[in-house]
Amino acid sequence: MAKKKVAILGSSGMIGQRFAQMLAGHPYFEVVAYCASDRSDGKKLADVWRLSDVELDPALGSSVIRGTNPKALAKEGVEVVFSGLPSDVAGPVEDQCADQGIAVFSNAASHRMEKDTPILIPEINPEHLASLVVQKKRRKGRGFVVTNANCSVTGLAIGLKPLVDRFGFTDVNVATYQALSGAGYPGVPSLDILGNVLPYIKNEEEKMNEEGRKILGGYKNGAFVDSPVTIMASCARVNVRDGHLEAVFIRHQNMPSETEVIEALGGFRARPQTLKLPSAPEQPIIVRAEPNRPQPILDADAGSPERARGMAVTVGRIRRQKDSLRFYLLSHNTIRGGAGGSVLNAELAHKEGYV
Amino acid sequence: MAKKKVAILGSSGMIGQRFAQMLAGHPYFEVVAYCASDRSDGKKLADVWRLSDVELDPALGSSVIRGTNPKALAKEGVEVVFSGLPSDVAGPVEDQCADQGIAVFSNAASHRMEKDTPILIPEINPEHLASLVVQKKRRKGRGFVVTNANCSVTGLAIGLKPLVDRFGFTDVNVATYQALSGAGYPGVPSLDILGNVLPYIKNEEEKMNEEGRKILGGYKNGAFVDSPVTIMASCARVNVRDGHLEAVFIRHQNMPSETEVIEALGGFRARPQTLKLPSAPEQPIIVRAEPNRPQPILDADAGSPERARGMAVTVGRIRRQKDSLRFYLLSHNTIRGGAGGSVLNAELAHKEGYV
Amino acid sequence: MAKKKVAILGSSGMIGQRFAQMLAGHPYFEVVAYCASDRSDGKKLADVWRLSDVELDPALGSSVIRGTNPKALAKEGVEVVFSGLPSDVAGPVEDQCADQGIAVFSNAASHRMEKDTPILIPEINPEHLASLVVQKKRRKGRGFVVTNANCSVTGLAIGLKPLVDRFGFTDVNVATYQALSGAGYPGVPSLDILGNVLPYIKNEEEKMNEEGRKILGGYKNGAFVDSPVTIMASCARVNVRDGHLEAVFIRHQNMPSETEVIEALGGFRARPQTLKLPSAPEQPIIVRAEPNRPQPILDADAGSPERARGMAVTVGRIRRQKDSLRFYLLSHNTIRGGAGGSVLNAELAHKEGYV
Amino acid sequence: MAKKKVAILGSSGMIGQRFAQMLAGHPYFEVVAYCASDRSDGKKLADVWRLSDVELDPALGSSVIRGTNPKALAKEGVEVVFSGLPSDVAGPVEDQCADQGIAVFSNAASHRMEKDTPILIPEINPEHLASLVVQKKRRKGRGFVVTNANCSVTGLAIGLKPLVDRFGFTDVNVATYQALSGAGYPGVPSLDILGNVLPYIKNEEEKMNEEGRKILGGYKNGAFVDSPVTIMASCARVNVRDGHLEAVFIRHQNMPSETEVIEALGGFRARPQTLKLPSAPEQPIIVRAEPNRPQPILDADAGSPERARGMAVTVGRIRRQKDSLRFYLLSHNTIRGGAGGSVLNAELAHKEGYV
Repeated sequence: MAKKKVAILGSSGMIGQRFAQMLAGHPYFEVVAYCASDRSDGKKLADVWRLSDVELDPALGSSVIRGTNPKALAKEGVEVVFSGLPSDVAGPVEDQCADQGIAVFSNAASHRMEKDTPILIPEINPEHLASLVVQKKRRKGRGFVVTNANCSVTGLAIGLKPLVDRFGFTDVNVATYQALSGAGYPGVPSLDILGNVLPYIKNEEEKMNEEGRKILGGYKNGAFVDSPVTIMASCARVNVRDGHLEAVFIRHQNMPSETEVIEALGGFRARPQTLKLPSAPEQPIIVRAEPNRPQPILDADAGSPERARGMAVTVGRIRRQKDSLRFYLLSHNTIRGGAGGSVLNAELAHKEGYV
Repeated sequence: MAKKKVAILGSSGMIGQRFAQMLAGHPYFEVVAYCASDRSDGKKLADVWRLSDVELDPALGSSVIRGTNPKALAKEGVEVVFSGLPSDVAGPVEDQCADQGIAVFSNAASHRMEKDTPILIPEINPEHLASLVVQKKRRKGRGFVVTNANCSVTGLAIGLKPLVDRFGFTDVNVATYQALSGAGYPGVPSLDILGNVLPYIKNEEEKMNEEGRKILGGYKNGAFVDSPVTIMASCARVNVRDGHLEAVFIRHQNMPSETEVIEALGGFRARPQTLKLPSAPEQPIIVRAEPNRPQPILDADAGSPERARGMAVTVGRIRRQKDSLRFYLLSHNTIRGGAGGSVLNAELAHKEGYV
Repeated sequence: MAKKKVAILGSSGMIGQRFAQMLAGHPYFEVVAYCASDRSDGKKLADVWRLSDVELDPALGSSVIRGTNPKALAKEGVEVVFSGLPSDVAGPVEDQCADQGIAVFSNAASHRMEKDTPILIPEINPEHLASLVVQKKRRKGRGFVVTNANCSVTGLAIGLKPLVDRFGFTDVNVATYQALSGAGYPGVPSLDILGNVLPYIKNEEEKMNEEGRKILGGYKNGAFVDSPVTIMASCARVNVRDGHLEAVFIRHQNMPSETEVIEALGGFRARPQTLKLPSAPEQPIIVRAEPNRPQPILDADAGSPERARGMAVTVGRIRRQKDSLRFYLLSHNTIRGGAGGSVLNAELAHKEGYV
Repeated sequence: MAKKKVAILGSSGMIGQRFAQMLAGHPYFEVVAYCASDRSDGKKLADVWRLSDVELDPALGSSVIRGTNPKALAKEGVEVVFSGLPSDVAGPVEDQCADQGIAVFSNAASHRMEKDTPILIPEINPEHLASLVVQKKRRKGRGFVVTNANCSVTGLAIGLKPLVDRFGFTDVNVATYQALSGAGYPGVPSLDILGNVLPYIKNEEEKMNEEGRKILGGYKNGAFVDSPVTIMASCARVNVRDGHLEAVFIRHQNMPSETEVIEALGGFRARPQTLKLPSAPEQPIIVRAEPNRPQPILDADAGSPERARGMAVTVGRIRRQKDSLRFYLLSHNTIRGGAGGSVLNAELAHKEGYV
């Protein structure tokens, strides 16, 4: 079967470049256009590449970036767009793409809280794709927007999913140790973070709760139904390149044993694993037994096979005490919590016939 | 009045050097001996100085370090010893000093959980000094040991004190972002922490709860009575020189308003302030209104007057939501949570007639 | 004698704030206006403060920033302006101030290479002040501009001065390890420098040579005469907050001994020391004998008395081999190589009757 | 052809682990023993793994470490040993292996300066292998020791080789920006390097010159002949994980043009490329034209094919001025300048019939 033609929006940014990396050689999709603002028009990917952990393939590096023109993309047969646009400009551009009949998979916050737009995490809420029927009606066409979640809530929601399902947890506190790449480029000034921690990330704590409730909730009678889970977060930036670490505290009457929690997390498999989606990790949640894991530099890239590197969530230091549960959780913020999340979303949508 | 002759144990380590810095020109105490292991015997303080934030006074730097000999110290008229010894060797040496009739103020964990030894924080539990009557009987002499608390629980306990007293809070979760200096020198290898967070500090989480309950508890009928407060901690090391940051989560029915919490914290004054102890900060808890404070590089040194730099605890981002309260708290781990804590303890003991 | 009224331009930037810090309580000057772009108009210094090594005095922090209006300044009796403006905007604003009869002491590059404007380093070329006679004629008034040198050449030039004078060195290679604060704020993105070195600083290597030749040169018959010294530099940025470290290589036939070099450096005194200018370090060049010095975190703040902190240059690891000489040199880039340099310039100009 | 059985000495250290990584699936060699000190006996590689840039293959990670017993290794048919032992213990152990008839490829300094032991860099001095004839006679057997060079001189010597050969350069100054991994583990304490540069690495500057002269020299009439090249180095440690950056200054009468230098460097090919050794980079020296390269985080891993990652040296910012030449050079200190160097040495020795 011929691969679907796809384009990347925001190719000069960090999420756009993760898209480029993850879509290279993809079995379903072929990137035919690397778009960015007019400022980057004509530059090559190599000129703006910022992912120091990835050796840029010369062929990919020589790809030319061009301006963003939804109509032209549609004319060229582009059926899918991956959007790494900043949230302050993503909204209208993504709408224009959808209006051209294109399926948009977006990392931006712009459309996340809309009534007929899913915040899709295939391991958690594949049934939310059904909302696209409503959205397409609103848009009067084939186009639609699917979003991935905020980078700090994505890993947490995946870690919570089997626990919420099996034990009914609803009461979650979390303190984050978030990586620099989550702020984009140029992002955090070096003078602010050298030898420091910044205990504030604008709107992040609110998003974690709002998006978390939607993600972990259901879709019934044509509408999203919020989960009863409450996420009270305190979000801080640390001097780490990639990988959001989170200290999770859960309260629950009749707290299960550590063994039960470990089994629920480590044994978790979901629709992407059943469908063997190309970017799905064989094991979505990896539980580490060592006393000092997960660590960003060791575990951010967790996930196999190769195409799923950075797509697994790592959990460690699981400690139960009476009706309290504590653990540390880590996930790659620009892969699982960014571009990789949207690639997996597109793979699911493709398999489910939406693309 | 003549100053008391004092000695510093562990002068080649980071806490020992903070003692040296804080005791320079002290109105009550005069350092007559800088002791360390025989390995450092004969070196000068300047040769081993590790406090990069302090310009070493040449006179102080030329002080000669000598071996540790409790008997000789007593003979020379040393009445007070400040111990910055590592916990694995502190116990017996401190006992030997106390047996020579010396008052020991210790940063080590060795004696903290003993039944007749206080973990003293003058703003919180000055009445715990009464336990020394029992301890001196056991030791059959004038000597005794007073400890300061673990560096991560000190700031937290100070922040909790007015809240526990006024509102009866008992249920505390805390995630820490702890500085490198808390691990001593050489401490954390650079390869482990560059661009990383280490989500584990041995025994730290247990200490925070155990010590916290003793510190915030009472002293009645010749015995310590634990506080009902429970501190569930997740402790991590970050790439910061000085200053432990902590994300605090508190649950409480009938949670007071943010304004009430701010007033309780900012208005807190205690015995050290009444007594105007030289190292007591005029305001023990500083509440910052900015959205992005406290930060280690900006707030670790909080505290005035000059002699109280690093002795104030800074609290920020106070957010109440229903029966939950969240805030960030910062304190200097080797000043308030280390040497400075013991200096203040000695000042209190002196004023109260124990020294 | 009444203090001169002075204003600071660029008060919201890092150099501007160093000016504010260094001029607080100054014996000659009194700051009556903290100016910045209109964007900061009405903010307080505390709102924009970025110097994490300095505890901001509350009185200073509450100073209100205002827009930049040279005419208004002159009307209010401002006789001296310290300019921490970025080089791309400094030129015309400084000219406007000078045209109002104000003496401008500038950290910007804009006027440095002009024929009648000195790049003044009082220890090196106090006689360059004579160029102001020519400059004032050109400006047709009392006003003038005096510049301080680029931050990376300042320390080097001071270190070279006694060696060039005594031994006639002319052939200098230097590799730099430059601090983040040299790039201003927001400056270097954290993602670029975490665990990295950036081997390029725009125009820096050219400036080091051009400015170095002018600084070390003479002033004869109303014109600057370049020094024969050639500085071939390779400039890199490292993850350090303050303090430019430089590896200096010198070639010379009949290279003097290490002892002679040490004596020339350590014994160097010049006009600011003779005049006892308030910000002049008693010893402009401190030679360290330890094998591992100078280090940015230990030596950037070198200099006494208190008002001269960061004004001394530190040299270490002096090694001669045949006709080669190697050493490491460190100086504080925003104090000696920035604001402090201009403050010292103004002090000299005042003493010499130019202000 | 059956693969040669090999063992790794010092498997718990950073160089030992690079050997393990680079020898996995090697076409010539099969690792049958991971040796270390008795302290690590029985541990698995996964328990001591410290290479955060490499995802440890589970099969490799489960390899059991054992004590070091040269006789037992020989009995098991081990013909080649790769030594990642620290220099203070390497000497005798490597001798014992050689005495058992084993070919030792060592990263340690112990034997480097011996008269019949080569410091081999296959791109530079493959003819130095001839010294093994003499060495084997001394050892009265088949066994021998081949060393790789110090990590900081390796990359520099490779960069110098084509320039020395073509233009006759002899006069080199170099300032280094060396990575933390060069100091091993635990190595540099984090408190020493956070926000700092350490301008001293013991013995490093001497080694660069001594080893450089031997490496770039000849082998004639059964003896090594020093090259006339002089390397005057100033060595510093920076807060970088992997990759030694070096600022190189060369003096030469009749300095060639930048274009000639670029051609000499970029066009350099040598014996490993001719022989297509598995770990040989297709292009040993990569010249970057960008103004801000090489950078450790972007270029340390340079080299293709996959097995040669980290084996290429990157040179950038080539600037000629009169009779001076300046450039920045980067190479991976634990791959090209460590384990990878010895693997390439063993490959060459194998092809040339010494193993």
